[in-house]
Amino acid sequence: MSARDDRPTLAVVGATGAVGTVMLDILSTREDVWGEIRLLASPRSAGRRLTVRGEQVEVQAISPEAFDGVDVAMFDVPDDVSAEWAPVAASRGAVAVDNSGAFRMDDDVPLVVPEVNAAAARTRPRGIISNPNCTTLSMIVAMGALHRTYGLRELVVASYQAASGAGQAGIDTLHDQIAKVAADRELGTRAGDVRRAVGDLGPFPAPLALNVVPWAGSLKDGGWSSEELKVRNESRKILGLPDLRVNATCVRVPVVTTHSLAVHATFEREVSQHEAQAVLRDAAGVVLCDDPAAYEFPTPADAVGTDPTWVGRVRRSLDDPHSLDLFLCGDNLRKGAALNTAQIAEVVAAELTEGR
Amino acid sequence: MSARDDRPTLAVVGATGAVGTVMLDILSTREDVWGEIRLLASPRSAGRRLTVRGEQVEVQAISPEAFDGVDVAMFDVPDDVSAEWAPVAASRGAVAVDNSGAFRMDDDVPLVVPEVNAAAARTRPRGIISNPNCTTLSMIVAMGALHRTYGLRELVVASYQAASGAGQAGIDTLHDQIAKVAADRELGTRAGDVRRAVGDLGPFPAPLALNVVPWAGSLKDGGWSSEELKVRNESRKILGLPDLRVNATCVRVPVVTTHSLAVHATFEREVSQHEAQAVLRDAAGVVLCDDPAAYEFPTPADAVGTDPTWVGRVRRSLDDPHSLDLFLCGDNLRKGAALNTAQIAEVVAAELTEGR
Repeated sequence: MSARDDRPTLAVVGATGAVGTVMLDILSTREDVWGEIRLLASPRSAGRRLTVRGEQVEVQAISPEAFDGVDVAMFDVPDDVSAEWAPVAASRGAVAVDNSGAFRMDDDVPLVVPEVNAAAARTRPRGIISNPNCTTLSMIVAMGALHRTYGLRELVVASYQAASGAGQAGIDTLHDQIAKVAADRELGTRAGDVRRAVGDLGPFPAPLALNVVPWAGSLKDGGWSSEELKVRNESRKILGLPDLRVNATCVRVPVVTTHSLAVHATFEREVSQHEAQAVLRDAAGVVLCDDPAAYEFPTPADAVGTDPTWVGRVRRSLDDPHSLDLFLCGDNLRKGAALNTAQIAEVVAAELTEGR
Repeated sequence: MSARDDRPTLAVVGATGAVGTVMLDILSTREDVWGEIRLLASPRSAGRRLTVRGEQVEVQAISPEAFDGVDVAMFDVPDDVSAEWAPVAASRGAVAVDNSGAFRMDDDVPLVVPEVNAAAARTRPRGIISNPNCTTLSMIVAMGALHRTYGLRELVVASYQAASGAGQAGIDTLHDQIAKVAADRELGTRAGDVRRAVGDLGPFPAPLALNVVPWAGSLKDGGWSSEELKVRNESRKILGLPDLRVNATCVRVPVVTTHSLAVHATFEREVSQHEAQAVLRDAAGVVLCDDPAAYEFPTPADAVGTDPTWVGRVRRSLDDPHSLDLFLCGDNLRKGAALNTAQIAEVVAAELTEGR
């Protein structure tokens, strides 16, 4: 525990990145369970002062000693940085909560979404807990609620993923491209005209303004993208369904922040539209927004900056009473990253506090 | 047959609209099977001169007599105009090829995609042939080729539909909104900020710039949209599979023209990725664009203004050897509307010519 008070000490590693910035905002607005909050980053960012809980905190360079006295260390850094430093934090006695992909499929590392499998956070042989990928997180709270009611058997997912999933470079690239295409109202009618207009593609493999791009991540066997396999493997692990059938197609769209997903879900038991809507309305962390007659359905422009998973367009299949189709939106920087990491850290903090 | 030469006479009804404009372009570039081409529109547009096959043609006001001597009459007009005038054209001896939704599910009206079911065009008790909805057309040529090889059993579709599916008003609204959001690089981070910035929503129920909108068409039973039911009902009719299971979620995206679809297709027989790619590569009207290692996959910005259905991201399900996932792009104003109508008209022209 921190020397400052009897509440646990938190370290935020990667406090200066896109997710880290949202994390500091979230830490300033949630119930304050932390004693000291220590900000760690690469030596390049050390010495910068950032605001947390209304106070200026100086960023320290990451080092083994920087984790001494830390109870929980959140990592919002690239995979290779987590792979190196999360075990260091754990070896110094901290519980590492990692938002990278480095440990998610490790059998000795729980993959936790507090609304779905909070208890899994208690068993962590390596001292590391992983936070799921943002695309999985954009649907899994809602799908977990439906699974508890109906028993999930299969998911077919098509994503509409925001530019900020590719970090600040993704956001900047989309704004740059929007500015370039805004000048010409004839664009978008001839093959390649948008490609010529946007110039720099940034972190994307094709233009994102006035376009959609069916690619995210790296190429894996069978033509699948790493992002698509994350949705499959992480959904199985979080829900505790190792044989769950999951087919995902991940597509980037010209939205700044908030991922959307069209999901076709098949269950063990028969479903009804109204009962499924009631389940979602009552689920923690979910907002049902489903009255198309009044044009009420989730869109990223309305969901961005908020914490819940927004669900609408709930329909029972006309061909199969075991299947539902839905449309979901979730802020990929909040629930999709920083918020879920903060929630996991709070679960650990409660455990540490009760164990005293 | 026309008095001018022995080739059939064509009438284009709705020549001044968004699809009609593309139609005149298409008629000027395809093999010239027509004698006279007569342009018909509302009295309001009569007297305008438009260019077809390099010649100026004066638009005539639609009337029963305007169809006298016409062999084939294409209709690119709203449902109610087609419902009124296509039977008039048929009663005057023309074969009506209708791009509206007025007759598509009529048992006495064939619904034709020449690459899939050209023979169906020969049986037309009402003298009317329907052209499918643009979303169905963006995938059906490729799905027809796979069906002939593997036997289609089920489709799960998520669409990424372009603004021009809502006509010229949709295109104008998207450009207006892009111009408004381009000025502010902070947009897209707080709920409602894009909604406030774009102002007029035009024909869409939510902002389209920096957003995606899970709605197209009108509300039907069970929460389904009319667009989603068109994909289901029209796919069944075109493929001759009245029990085909189809679940679609239709979503509008900030793309000017060209619809994209993520499709999860399940077949009677086992599939292989490489064989399916070969089937698609060899299919008439389809271009396979599928080398993600080289960032080759279809995007609307690359497919717009072209005739074929572009297909990529072909993957066999990791959980079911009978299932494929794919991503498709098709220009919704060309194959999705004007081109397919022109192809149907040419099928009829060939039949009329051989029947002489």
